[in-house]
This record gives sequence, structure tokens and C-alpha cells, in this order.
Amino acid sequence: MKIPYLQKANAAFLDRHVTRASDLIQEWGGESFSGVGIIGAPLSKSSISHSGACFAPGTIRKAFSAFSTYSIEENIDLASCMIRDLGDIAMHVTDVLQSQNRVYETIFRVFEENPLWLPIVLGGDNSITYPSVKGFSKAKGKVGVIQFDAHHDVRNFQDGGPTNGTPFRSLIETGTISGNHLIQIGIRDFSNSKPYFDYVNNKGVTVYTMKDVRQKKMVDIMRKSLDKLKDEVDSIYVSVDMDVVDQSQAPGCPAIGPGGMDTQDLFEAVSYLGEQSIVEGLEIVEVDPTVDFRDMTSRVAAHVILHFLKGKRKSVEI
Amino acid sequence: MKIPYLQKANAAFLDRHVTRASDLIQEWGGESFSGVGIIGAPLSKSSISHSGACFAPGTIRKAFSAFSTYSIEENIDLASCMIRDLGDIAMHVTDVLQSQNRVYETIFRVFEENPLWLPIVLGGDNSITYPSVKGFSKAKGKVGVIQFDAHHDVRNFQDGGPTNGTPFRSLIETGTISGNHLIQIGIRDFSNSKPYFDYVNNKGVTVYTMKDVRQKKMVDIMRKSLDKLKDEVDSIYVSVDMDVVDQSQAPGCPAIGPGGMDTQDLFEAVSYLGEQSIVEGLEIVEVDPTVDFRDMTSRVAAHVILHFLKGKRKSVEI
Amino acid sequence: MKIPYLQKANAAFLDRHVTRASDLIQEWGGESFSGVGIIGAPLSKSSISHSGACFAPGTIRKAFSAFSTYSIEENIDLASCMIRDLGDIAMHVTDVLQSQNRVYETIFRVFEENPLWLPIVLGGDNSITYPSVKGFSKAKGKVGVIQFDAHHDVRNFQDGGPTNGTPFRSLIETGTISGNHLIQIGIRDFSNSKPYFDYVNNKGVTVYTMKDVRQKKMVDIMRKSLDKLKDEVDSIYVSVDMDVVDQSQAPGCPAIGPGGMDTQDLFEAVSYLGEQSIVEGLEIVEVDPTVDFRDMTSRVAAHVILHFLKGKRKSVEI
Amino acid sequence: MKIPYLQKANAAFLDRHVTRASDLIQEWGGESFSGVGIIGAPLSKSSISHSGACFAPGTIRKAFSAFSTYSIEENIDLASCMIRDLGDIAMHVTDVLQSQNRVYETIFRVFEENPLWLPIVLGGDNSITYPSVKGFSKAKGKVGVIQFDAHHDVRNFQDGGPTNGTPFRSLIETGTISGNHLIQIGIRDFSNSKPYFDYVNNKGVTVYTMKDVRQKKMVDIMRKSLDKLKDEVDSIYVSVDMDVVDQSQAPGCPAIGPGGMDTQDLFEAVSYLGEQSIVEGLEIVEVDPTVDFRDMTSRVAAHVILHFLKGKRKSVEI
Amino acid sequence: MKIPYLQKANAAFLDRHVTRASDLIQEWGGESFSGVGIIGAPLSKSSISHSGACFAPGTIRKAFSAFSTYSIEENIDLASCMIRDLGDIAMHVTDVLQSQNRVYETIFRVFEENPLWLPIVLGGDNSITYPSVKGFSKAKGKVGVIQFDAHHDVRNFQDGGPTNGTPFRSLIETGTISGNHLIQIGIRDFSNSKPYFDYVNNKGVTVYTMKDVRQKKMVDIMRKSLDKLKDEVDSIYVSVDMDVVDQSQAPGCPAIGPGGMDTQDLFEAVSYLGEQSIVEGLEIVEVDPTVDFRDMTSRVAAHVILHFLKGKRKSVEI
Amino acid sequence: MKIPYLQKANAAFLDRHVTRASDLIQEWGGESFSGVGIIGAPLSKSSISHSGACFAPGTIRKAFSAFSTYSIEENIDLASCMIRDLGDIAMHVTDVLQSQNRVYETIFRVFEENPLWLPIVLGGDNSITYPSVKGFSKAKGKVGVIQFDAHHDVRNFQDGGPTNGTPFRSLIETGTISGNHLIQIGIRDFSNSKPYFDYVNNKGVTVYTMKDVRQKKMVDIMRKSLDKLKDEVDSIYVSVDMDVVDQSQAPGCPAIGPGGMDTQDLFEAVSYLGEQSIVEGLEIVEVDPTVDFRDMTSRVAAHVILHFLKGKRKSVEI
Repeated sequence: MKIPYLQKANAAFLDRHVTRASDLIQEWGGESFSGVGIIGAPLSKSSISHSGACFAPGTIRKAFSAFSTYSIEENIDLASCMIRDLGDIAMHVTDVLQSQNRVYETIFRVFEENPLWLPIVLGGDNSITYPSVKGFSKAKGKVGVIQFDAHHDVRNFQDGGPTNGTPFRSLIETGTISGNHLIQIGIRDFSNSKPYFDYVNNKGVTVYTMKDVRQKKMVDIMRKSLDKLKDEVDSIYVSVDMDVVDQSQAPGCPAIGPGGMDTQDLFEAVSYLGEQSIVEGLEIVEVDPTVDFRDMTSRVAAHVILHFLKGKRKSVEI
Repeated sequence: MKIPYLQKANAAFLDRHVTRASDLIQEWGGESFSGVGIIGAPLSKSSISHSGACFAPGTIRKAFSAFSTYSIEENIDLASCMIRDLGDIAMHVTDVLQSQNRVYETIFRVFEENPLWLPIVLGGDNSITYPSVKGFSKAKGKVGVIQFDAHHDVRNFQDGGPTNGTPFRSLIETGTISGNHLIQIGIRDFSNSKPYFDYVNNKGVTVYTMKDVRQKKMVDIMRKSLDKLKDEVDSIYVSVDMDVVDQSQAPGCPAIGPGGMDTQDLFEAVSYLGEQSIVEGLEIVEVDPTVDFRDMTSRVAAHVILHFLKGKRKSVEI
Repeated sequence: MKIPYLQKANAAFLDRHVTRASDLIQEWGGESFSGVGIIGAPLSKSSISHSGACFAPGTIRKAFSAFSTYSIEENIDLASCMIRDLGDIAMHVTDVLQSQNRVYETIFRVFEENPLWLPIVLGGDNSITYPSVKGFSKAKGKVGVIQFDAHHDVRNFQDGGPTNGTPFRSLIETGTISGNHLIQIGIRDFSNSKPYFDYVNNKGVTVYTMKDVRQKKMVDIMRKSLDKLKDEVDSIYVSVDMDVVDQSQAPGCPAIGPGGMDTQDLFEAVSYLGEQSIVEGLEIVEVDPTVDFRDMTSRVAAHVILHFLKGKRKSVEI
Repeated sequence: MKIPYLQKANAAFLDRHVTRASDLIQEWGGESFSGVGIIGAPLSKSSISHSGACFAPGTIRKAFSAFSTYSIEENIDLASCMIRDLGDIAMHVTDVLQSQNRVYETIFRVFEENPLWLPIVLGGDNSITYPSVKGFSKAKGKVGVIQFDAHHDVRNFQDGGPTNGTPFRSLIETGTISGNHLIQIGIRDFSNSKPYFDYVNNKGVTVYTMKDVRQKKMVDIMRKSLDKLKDEVDSIYVSVDMDVVDQSQAPGCPAIGPGGMDTQDLFEAVSYLGEQSIVEGLEIVEVDPTVDFRDMTSRVAAHVILHFLKGKRKSVEI
Repeated sequence: MKIPYLQKANAAFLDRHVTRASDLIQEWGGESFSGVGIIGAPLSKSSISHSGACFAPGTIRKAFSAFSTYSIEENIDLASCMIRDLGDIAMHVTDVLQSQNRVYETIFRVFEENPLWLPIVLGGDNSITYPSVKGFSKAKGKVGVIQFDAHHDVRNFQDGGPTNGTPFRSLIETGTISGNHLIQIGIRDFSNSKPYFDYVNNKGVTVYTMKDVRQKKMVDIMRKSLDKLKDEVDSIYVSVDMDVVDQSQAPGCPAIGPGGMDTQDLFEAVSYLGEQSIVEGLEIVEVDPTVDFRDMTSRVAAHVILHFLKGKRKSVEI
Repeated sequence: MKIPYLQKANAAFLDRHVTRASDLIQEWGGESFSGVGIIGAPLSKSSISHSGACFAPGTIRKAFSAFSTYSIEENIDLASCMIRDLGDIAMHVTDVLQSQNRVYETIFRVFEENPLWLPIVLGGDNSITYPSVKGFSKAKGKVGVIQFDAHHDVRNFQDGGPTNGTPFRSLIETGTISGNHLIQIGIRDFSNSKPYFDYVNNKGVTVYTMKDVRQKKMVDIMRKSLDKLKDEVDSIYVSVDMDVVDQSQAPGCPAIGPGGMDTQDLFEAVSYLGEQSIVEGLEIVEVDPTVDFRDMTSRVAAHVILHFLKGKRKSVEI
């Protein structure tokens, strides 16, 4: 029997005329599907510095409930879309490499069953990028990566193994992607080293520093990046390390600093990328809710995803 | 198809040999039941001072997942029990009195369908005590209340209406309970006024101050309280205003101060009360998670409930 | 007898050559007056989400003591002005609608006695806008409202009554103002719903989204807004919901998010509006000091008022 | 004209049947008076470690508004008392010694005009004890000091001058008090040095360590202390360095640590001392609100004063 | 050339008559030594829940500078002792098992070179106990362990490998110690499971619950524990999981809760143990400074070590 | 003997291909040197408001370890430079004026021994500017100062003596510098007073308000400033009061507010100044780490220094 006023614990206020972004998300039951599906990779024991990025899948999902589906600027409403939430990849408590491998295996296995999946991967730290792209590329073929990041993230492996500082070196060294198919945007002063800049240069990686971002229009950088990749790769994966954003706007990343990107530039970039059919994957990494202020950085992450979804809405409409 | 390693989002670590207290709790489906059932009353707009006690039902539930079912001190394991979670009572955004009335109506309606329900009410502020006991007594008959509180909570109604400072005056003035059937334990120095002490005295309320608590053994206070009530009432309801505890041990209450009760005394008291069959209801109020440190006060609340459940386990075993 | 060095408790450091903004403010004694008068409306129990906006009148007043009266950019010194502080409107503890009505009655009563009052209303949450403008318009005649806000705030009333999400619907539906006389500036992506955008559109409301703010010059938006309203209304009331500002610059609002306005744009807007004689009222709402960082958001509020006062200084010079 | 509902800014909730402790306190107008008078000594630039104890006079005063005048344990109501607030002693920004001297001069000057003043001095750091007792003893004659403190506070002067670590050495070396008339209670392990213990021993100081406090009854320590002093001195001054309390109960002192006193013991001590007519002064020092949690330590300070006032109430009844 | 006033960066205030506990500690140069030596094991990636216990070696060392060497209660001054700081064991970024093995190897290697080393191991999480005791016992022979802990920490290995929940199972299963030689003190209600209590029971482990601690005198528990072990083992290692202490006194442990031990009991226990020559090792684990309040829990840790050192001072006097 | 894995306590992660900014810094041994040398002036007892700026030398030094030596934007690597760390100037605990004098004496004495020293002074509050520039000018001759600041800092001395509000008045009144040789950039609305603006005007000081900064290009302001000074002075000293930056980007200054400078503008300015050989000194003041968020403001300070060093790298290459 239904008791009046009794409702599920912790229920939020509902306005009958508002669709919250969180309303789009439905727990995946295991059925075949195509289109956008969110998956959590709550791994941060691979981080060089102490990191609670393992909590970001939870806080980013929660941030969706603070926002609606309607872009008034573009008059686009995502209310008729449906996003599957595949859940989180279970991490091993003490075996970091197995955890990373589980990311790869899980990503690939979902693709195997659902080749038209468009993954939005919620890290976790940046170390998940390697297994995630490895799974992605096994499903998609030749992959290009557009990386928003303050750092090259091509550290050597001797000093600590496959950490959150090494994913792009892993991708290149294993041949998962070609250096020519990697575009790094937002690389920042005093956050990288010359030897690693030389490394990416030698590998043919395209690098846009923050100076480039300040001096060029973001939409032009996007256009040039797409032009470079679109005829050479089968699919493009977008990697957003949230520390690409200035510390004043994304205070909840492990490696914060000044001199970073404005959120508006990042939103414009992912809006543009979302509209490109060749862009078929997105990840957000390095959000650490344990050092954030009022989940600000998770809120930025939710906006990144929503801006990306504007372009992908066709694929997820019910 | 099941994908290896993929699990529900935000899943906690599981140890196959540990039953968490949260594992006992199952969402109620509306079926007839008897025994312990948790219900949230997330109301704190009725508070005199700014209060986020509306969030306590959520944090106390969450605190259960930090503790197990096993009392090693008593060698009692609650693992075979089952606690229903009835959910929360939906509160009105702008009509506080209606919200209070919903508490009454909901408590009573659940009893109407399930007369053998043993409610554990999670406030919310102390204003919910009046509607909660009103619903409880409508179902149970003559009710005695054992109240753990730093304050009498019998303020006048002219100065703000039915607030978190008035519930016991409401109960007495409306005849819901008799003053003789109210026992207040933990009443504290410099936290009350003489006129209100005179009021409860005149109404026949039994008062144990903190001095009494320090000088007598808690189990003796409990025994005397039971002796006083057991032949005069049909049922006893236990009200725990968490601010009865010293500020150093329950820092997350709106009205904190020094000179309060030790948690150990409170645990002994509710352990004793849980064992009495005439005790058929428990509430915890005035936990404000927004000003707490690491949910300490919600953790104390979870322990209060677990100690209470030791005595009630027979009624909730599967 | 005067004891050397003994001064009022909590006195601040004084520099004989500095006039603090707080020095302009004098407690109103009830005498007839004209010109700027600050009034607090410390109501936030009407908020959909938990809000401590009731504390903002206190923190904004306190923020004035951190700033001086001198605009070096414009070489305008407010030092010779005098601002009356009318105090706060006493709120009812448990009757939210009565609290809102008290705002209306008080605003109107002050105007009745002092028709040339120029009110600066310190919320509280946005729900006070309806009673405040109602009192204002009863005194002033046909009123236009220029609203800085991330949200339309025209929610339906069934879902919670007159909350901080409904004030502009209340104003329009009651005919207090015409939709044609409402201008909304800073409306943000993923913070509103299509049905409510349709609603304001149908009512003739003028909407400037954040995209408009980014692409147009603020002074042009102001000019167009004034042009639209000045011949149609008797008086203009400016409503600043502080959440119009980006979360990185106004972190202490209940509904924070990225993609918002820069404080500099807001300062330019209110500077312009302060210079217009038809602008005769200002309110600041939705500052919640309990979740702010170092009262940053109250500091922004103080600057908003000071920039507004530059234009109003003639009316308040001694 | 009086406008309904309009009240002084930041007014607190009032219950007509409750007298708040803060209601007892009235700003002193300079008239002659006798009895209890509070005075703030907001100096902490004299501290060895960074200290915000200068803010404690403000937070302790504010804490009074969180408590009432009624001791239910003793059935003593202070409601008919009146406490004067003399305000704060103005401190020099850059001349610490002058600030200390101002404490001396002000204390003495107030006594000169009002010989029957019973001062309650709100520090500030412990450095104010020397000038305060100097002023007190100039007015009172031979003075004994009962000091609650984790530390001897008899450091040498070469290493930094007259700091918060030296006041009792100053008192003894200047002959302001005799070492025989100083009783130190609560001296703690690993918080002092052997040379300074030898120093106080040589000077005839009576020392009760925390071990003594744990093993003896506080009331016995008090009785013995009074017995020792009462025939030898003209007046007794009580100095409470709040760090005498365990860090878990007084977390807002600069020099916190475990192994300290329970607040209940401190309350019993000052209750006893308040009842002695020879005890004519009280100070509370070393509360630093900037590192406290929810003003807990200021709340303990307010309780210390209230317990002290129980015995002094005759002298301050209206 | 020496410039007046110029000193090492971040130098602390020095009082020539105070020996700080930190003054005892000298960086080890690799020379042969005997007696107390501190070693850090900054590992917390092995923790089941997110833990910053890796930072505790740093904060505990720093806490030493807040305390002196003098126990006034016992009139024991450690000022003439010298404690070597061996530094930290370097942890691998991504290979948790290798990190644990490094603890074992390093502990053993130091013993190999310095058989009379008396190690004080600063964790890190509780997982370090297994490799630490393994190294210790390889050097010492048959080892008994006295464990202060809220938890048995004998979880199964399938659910996550060798975590901070498994160390005592590892010790028993590998035969490193016998269950008969393990004494667990402070085991707490609702923090353990029946199967694991059965496990330790079956293995002959001695268990003192918190009820035992409350009802018996700690010194008696210590005496009985020593009596049980002293003839059966060659050496005793003391393991302090700081979460044995009540959450109000040790708020900075990952697994906090009410119902725990008083610090005073813990100090008495380690004081007693320090005096026993058969006790030749001490570790402190599960202090997480990232969730602590003002390093309170690290301060408790420093006191634990200082109380232990009172008895060991002979071995470390210069 | 070297034990494998044993390393210095609190050692940071090392990547063999990364030079951290902190790696450049070497403790000065007292030998003669030329080029850049960092010196701390940890004084903030001279501040008008409570300030923990005395901790900034420590946090800024620590922030260097979070950044690398490589400016990718300019392809400049500072890895081959060497910066001396001269340590901190020891401050007196209770004698503020002596502390200020020690700054002067120490700066001058270092210059006396090392005339080619290029000081980077880490405050401390702004009061150190006067003694620092006094020492600098005694060594260098006629000095010009380029000051980045929200405030003129030319307060009168009667109200508190030589505080953090008076340094530039001290410099001018003592003739240490001429008003014509002072350029103030970033002076902000409502943060200054007309009398002090008149003062600097009369003294010939050049003032760029924030309006100027917003409307002109920073590089043009720099060029004009250099043009004005270069032929008139022997050397230029750059003073950065971090509160010149907007509160959202430098939240850890005592006197925060909106309307401030963007960090990017500040970085461009100091980059330009670092390239000028006549610029021979830099100071950063008014960073208070005790009120900062995640040392953000110290991170900005570290970037300011690194940008400055790009131009100075020739002088410090090994």
C-alpha cells in the first residue's frame, strides 16, 4: 500500500517542468545498446601524488543533478536523450596493474557486445587513459587522440611504472596510437620538462601551448586539429585532464597551478568536437573531489560532458 | 550480458565475511510487515537557528555502512536481522506546518497498515517529535517518553510557533502525553531557563540533570525510569536529541556546548531500553551534518541505533 | 570618566585619512528621510535547497568595513554621503509566507512614510524579490525590473509554493509587473528549462543569455535595456541574483556553476544603472555566507552596491 | 515612526521566558560601579607562535548569547545580575610592549576609579597576565594567583622578550607576586622543561601536575590551594590558560596536545573559586578562534565564566 | 661570512632552556648503532578505503617539535637521549606488493647491520605490520605482538589481497607469529565480524574488548599480557593502530567511530610496555593527516612514542 | 652502510628527466656569490589586520617543488641555473621595529659582501618593503620602484606606526626613493582613500589604476614605466603585493577583494621586467598561507618568480 508523502530516501526536489541532466541517465541493465554510455574508472592509486580521483565518478554523476538538459545559448534541449550508466569498473585494492588492465578489458568487452557504444569515461587519474584508449582502439581501429592537458604525460616508466604521468608514452610506445595522431592542447609553462617536450616533438605529436590557446581562437585550433586527423584515423577520442583549466576555475585537481585555460575555451572546444561524427569517445580525468571546493571541479566536468552531448544528441535520442 | 568487473556505480568494498550494518537495511516495498523500520523526517526549517538537520537521515544511513552488525562486547550479531527502510517523509518547501503534519499523518498511516511496526525515526530537528509521538500514540495508546536532551524544549509558541524548541510543550498541552509520563535526562547548565524548569516541574515531568548523570549510574537512572513508566503507559518512545552529548563528542549539533553526556553513558542507556519490550519507538534528532566534522555525530547516531537494536533483534530476525 | 585606551569592544583599526564604506552607514532612528537606505530581508527558509542566505545581510554589511568610499578609477569619493541602515525585517520562525508578507508590508510602510527612499534590499533568497517589488511598485507605480540572474526563476507554484525559484512568475502572474518590463541578463546554459524559457518568451520578457553577454558589450546591453524601459515604466528596480556570476568568482551562492558572468561586467552594468535617475531600487539575493570562502561573495556584493552608489551619490550627500 | 517587523540588524531570536547570558552584559558608560566587569585585552602579537587570540574577546562575548543564565544543577539563576562590559583595551599595531603596558595602565585606572571592580579579563594571549596582575595587585595589595595551565610559563626573557611564555616569571622577578603565592594546576607531560620546573620549585611555587589532577579530587586541590593562600594574601586572581584542557575538548588553543584536563574538572574548580570572597579576579587567555572548531573553545570559556559567576552573583545583582 | 640574523629557512623559535622532543632526533648517517631508531613506512595505497596515512611519518615527526622531552609527572627528562631517524622506506608508485616487501627487506637489513636496533616504525597503514613484524622476527626470533586496535584485522585475502585489513592473518598464516602470541586490546563493538572473532579465537589469540578496557585497569591488562608472553617469546613488538582511540580524541584515522579508548589509557599502556626490556619494537599506524583536525592525531602519536621512550631512555642516552 | 630503499624522510617523487624549480635552489653556505639569491623576511606582526604572511617564505619555497624549470611557451629552460637560498631573517618575537631593522641590516650586509647579489625577497607583509628597499638602495644608489599593488600604502604613521600600510610613505619621506621614481600599478577602486591618492599625486608618483590595466596592454605600461625610470635611476626594484591580483585568483591575501588584476597580466609584466638588466631586485609580499586555499596564492608567487627568472637566467647559469 502506498503511504502518502512517503518517498525514496534522499529524494531531491522535483519541478515538473524541469528535466535535470541526471534524469537522462539510466542504469544499464546489460542489454545491447548503441550511443552514449557513461562508465566509471575509479582508479587513483596509480597517481604519483596522493589523489582521491577515484571519487570523481561519483561526484561528477552527482553534479549532473545540479544542472538541467537545456542549452539556452544554442536552444538545444537534451531532454529527449537517454544516457546509459554502465556503472564503475571494479578496481583491485592492492594490484594497480590489474586495475589498469580491468579498464582495458572492460572497455573492450563492452565494445565487443555493443560496437556502437560512444563511451564517456569518468576517471580516475590519467593512468586510465592508456587502457581506455587501448580498448577503444581495439574496437575502432586507427585512433587519434585530442588531449586537453597542462602536461605532456609522457614520463619514463622506470620511475614508478605506469602512473598518471605516463599514459601517452604508453600509447605511443606500444603503437596503440601514432605520435602523429596525438594533439596536446593547453600545455603549460613550468609544468613540463624539456626532455619530454623533445620526446613528443620527435614522435610527431602536435602541441598547442597555453600561449597558443591565448593567442589563437579555440575554434580555429579545433578546426586545424580535426583537419589534421580526420583523413588519417578511423576514430577520435577526446581526453580531458581537468588540470588543463586554471587553478582558480578547477581548484580540485591534484596538480593545480596558475596560467591555465579558461573554462569557456574548454566548453567551446568540446562543443565543437561533440558535433564531429568521427569523435566517438570522451574521458575526463584528474578531478579529485577530496581537495575541491564545493565540487566546483566536478561541476565543470558535468558541463564539459553536457556541451559535448549537444553534438551527440542525435545518437542518444529515444 | 554480464561484463566482468563492471559493477554498480559507487559500490563499496565487500568482505565476504563481514556483514555491514547497512546490509541489514532493505528498501520497503509497501508490503505488510512487523518489526523495526527506519523512516526519515528531513525537516529543519522549523529550527530557531539555521539548521541542516534535514540532511541527517542521509548521513546516518550512510554511517551504517561504516559499521558492522557484530557487538563483540555482548557477543550479539545482528547479521540475521532485517531492517526495513521506509524512506523519507516528503517535506513541503515553504509550508512548515504542513511538513510537520505530514510527519504525523505518515507515522500514523504506516501504523494503521502495520500495527507491529517499531519505528526508528531519523530527524530532522526536534520539532518532528510532536507529530511523531502524536502518530505513535494514536497507534499505541498511552505513551511514555524518555527524552535524552540538553534542553527541556518546552518553549512558548508565541515566539515563533511550533519550532524545535517546543515539541514537549506541544505533547503536554495537547494531552498527547501526560507530563508524568515524560522523563528528561541530561538537562544541562546554562542551556535552559528557570521558567521552563518550573513549567516541567509543574507538569510532573521527571528531570535528571547532567549532575544526576555524573553522580548516578546510568543503568540505575534507566531502571528507575522504567519502573516509573511501565505500569502507567502502554508503550514507551525514546527520543534522543543528540545535543545531550558533550560538544567534543557530538560536534555536529546546532546547539553545542560543554558539560554534556559521554557517548558511553548514552550507549548504555539505549542498550538497556532496547531490551525492554515496552519500548517500541526511537528517534534521533538535531544532528546537523553540514556543521559536523567527518560525520562524527552521524556515526554516534548509528551506534545509538545499533545498541538499541541489540535488544530488539528478536523482533527483526528473518 | 574616560579611561585612556579603553574603547568599544571589537573596534576596528582606524586610519584618520580613510573613510571606510561602513562609515557611511548610520543606523536609522525612524526619522523621515530621503535617499538611499539599506534594509535586510534575512529569509532563506523559502529556498528549494538548503540555504544560509539569511546571513547575507550581516556579512554584506560587514564587508563594507573592508572597503573604502573612494573610486580611484572614476575619481569619485562617496565620503560625504550618508546611507541609512533601516535594519532587518524580522522573519517568522515557522511561517514562511508570513515572512514574505512582512517583506512586502515593511517595504511599503517605509515608502509610505518616506516616499523618496531609494531602497537597497539585502536578501535573503530570491523569494524576497516578489514581496519587495510588490511593495516597491505600490509606492512607485509602473515598475520595470532589470534582473541579473543565471536562472529565469519562473517555476510553477504547485511544486513547493512561492520559493526562491518563483519570484518572477509571481510578479508577472499577479500583474505586479508586465513581462514586457522584465529584462533578464546572464541566463545560463544547463541552468534552466525549455518550458520556462517558453514561458518568459510568451510573456514578452527580454532575455540576454551568457552568450549575449560574452558577445556584446555590457554597456550596450544596458543602454538597450534602459531604452526599452524608460518610456514605459515609472521606475526601475534592479535585482542581482549573485549566482549570475561564475562560480570561481562568486563561490558562495547556493546554485553555483561554471559558464557565468565576470564580476567586471556586473560592476559596469550596475555603475551604468546607478547613474540613471529612473533606477530607484536595488536588491542583492542568493549570497549564502555559510558555504562561501572568506566572504568573497559578500565582498562582491559590497562592490556591486558601491558601484551603484557612485551614480546615486548626489541623492545621499549630506 | 516605528515600522512593524523592522528590527536592529542581525538581531537574534528572542524567547520571552529565557534570559540569555548575553542579556546580563551591558556596555559600560563610564559611571562609577562595583562588581563584575568584563574587559578585553586583544593582544596576541606577543605570542611565540602565530596566534589569533586577539579575536577571543569577541568570540567569547558572542558565545554568551548561546547560553542562558540558569544553572539547573545548582538551581541558581543569574538572571537578576548585571555584568558591565568595559570594552576592549586598544592595542598598538606595532609596539607590543606599549600594548602590554596599556593593559596594566587600563586595569589600574579602572580600579582607581572603581575600587570594587571584579575584573574578568578576556585575553589575548598569556602575556597579558603580567600587566593585568600588576594592575590588579597595585589596587589590591598582596596577590595570590591560581593558574590553570599546561605550562609553567616562566621562560627566560632573552629569547624574545616578554612573550606569552614568560608572564609568571615577570610576576615573580618583578616582585609583583611571590612564588609562594602562585599555584599552578594542570602542568602537563612533555609540555615543559626541567630547568623551568626547577625554577618554579626554587621560587616556592606550588605545582599540581595532570597526574595530581587525575589522582586527586579537584575540590580537594582547590581547598588546599585556598588554605595555603587565604591567610597570606589580600586577594586572589584566577588565571585560566585554556590550553590546560585536553585538545579534544579545547581544540582552539595555539599549543594543543593530549593528556590534558577535562572541562568538568575545570568547571568544578572555578565554581569553587567563584564562591570565595577573596577571589576577586579572573582571566581567560590563549583561546585562538581562528584555529578553533565551531567556537567550541570560546564556548568552554563562556561556561568557565558562568560557573565562576554563580558564586559571585550576590555582588552583581541589581 | 656569517650575516647577523640570517638563519636557516623555516627555523622555529628556540628557548635555550627547553629541549624539544624533535631535538632528540638526528638523521642517521649509516653508521652502526644500537638503541631507538625511527623509520617511516609511508604506504597507504594498500588501504581498503582512501587513506593519506602515507603522510603520517612526516606529521608525527613534525609533532615532536611541539612537545618537550620532560615528563613532569614522572620527573623523567629524555633530554640526554638521542634518537636516530633512519628516514623513510621508499615506496613504489604502482606496485603495492613490492612496497610491502621493501618494508620487510629494509627492516631486516637494518637489523642485520645493527642487531641492537629498537625500531619505532611510523606507518603508513596497517598493512605494513606484516612485513615489519616479519623483518623484526627474522632478527629477533620468536615474537609476541601486543596490538592496540579497534579491529582484529584478520580479513581474508581473496577480497583485495594483503590490505590494511589483513596483517594479523598474514602473520598467523605464514607462521611468523603464533596466534597464542598475539594479544589484541581495544577491539570494538560494530567494528568487527563474528567470523573473524571466531578466527582469532580458534588461533588462540587473546582479545580484550573495549568493555574489558572500561572494566579493568589498563595496568592489570598490561601485567597479564606480559605474564602471558614473557616466557614464551624472545621479543615483543607493540602495534598501535591509532583507531583504537575514540573518534573524539583521534579524529584523523580512516576508520573512526565512537566507543573507543581514552588516550590516557593508551599512554599508561605504552608507558608500562616501554619499561619492559623484552619489548623491543613499536609501530604506529593508521594516522591519516589529510582528514585530521590540527594534526591532533599525530600529536597523540608523538605522545605515545614519548611515553614509550620514558622506559627506553637508558638504551638511548648519550 | 647504505640500506636499499632507505631515503631521507619526506622525500618527494623524482623523475630523472624532470628538473623541478626547487632543484635550482641551494642553501647558501656563506661563500661569496653573485646573481639571484632568495631571502625570507617572515614578518607579519607589523600588519594592521591579523596576518600569517610570516609563513609565506615557507610555502612559496615549497610551491617551487610543484613546478618545473621549463617554460614551454618561450622554450626557455632554467635547468642550468642555480639560485641561492640565503635563508630567513630571524625576527624578534616582541619587538617589531627591531625586526624591520633586521631586514634592512641583513639586506645591506649581504650586499656589502656580495655586491652583485640580485635579491628575491619573500615577505612577510608589506612593511618589509621599506627596510628592504632601504638596504637595496644603500647598495645600489638611486633606486626606482615598480609596485604592483591594490593599494597606495602611504598611510600616516600616527595610527599604528610603520605597518604594512605605510612602506611607500616611509620610502618617500625618508628620501630613500623619490616619488618620481615610484610607479604604482593595479591601484583599485574602493581600496584606497582620496587623501592618499592626493599624497602620491603630490609626490610625483605615477599611478596606473585597474582601469588603466584593463584598457591598456600590460606590455605598454611596462615599456612606459621603464622609459620613465631607466635614465633617472641606477637600479629598479620590483615590489609585488599579491593582493594586486583578483580575489578569485589570489584568495590567500589578507586584504582580498574583487576588481583585481588577472595573473596573466602580472606574469607578462614580471617577464618583461626580468629581461631588463636595470631591474635588480624583486619582492613578493602579503601572501598569507593560513587563509589560502590549497596554497594557490603561493603557487602564483612561485610563477611570478619563475617568469622573472626567465630574463635573469644568464646571471644565474652555472
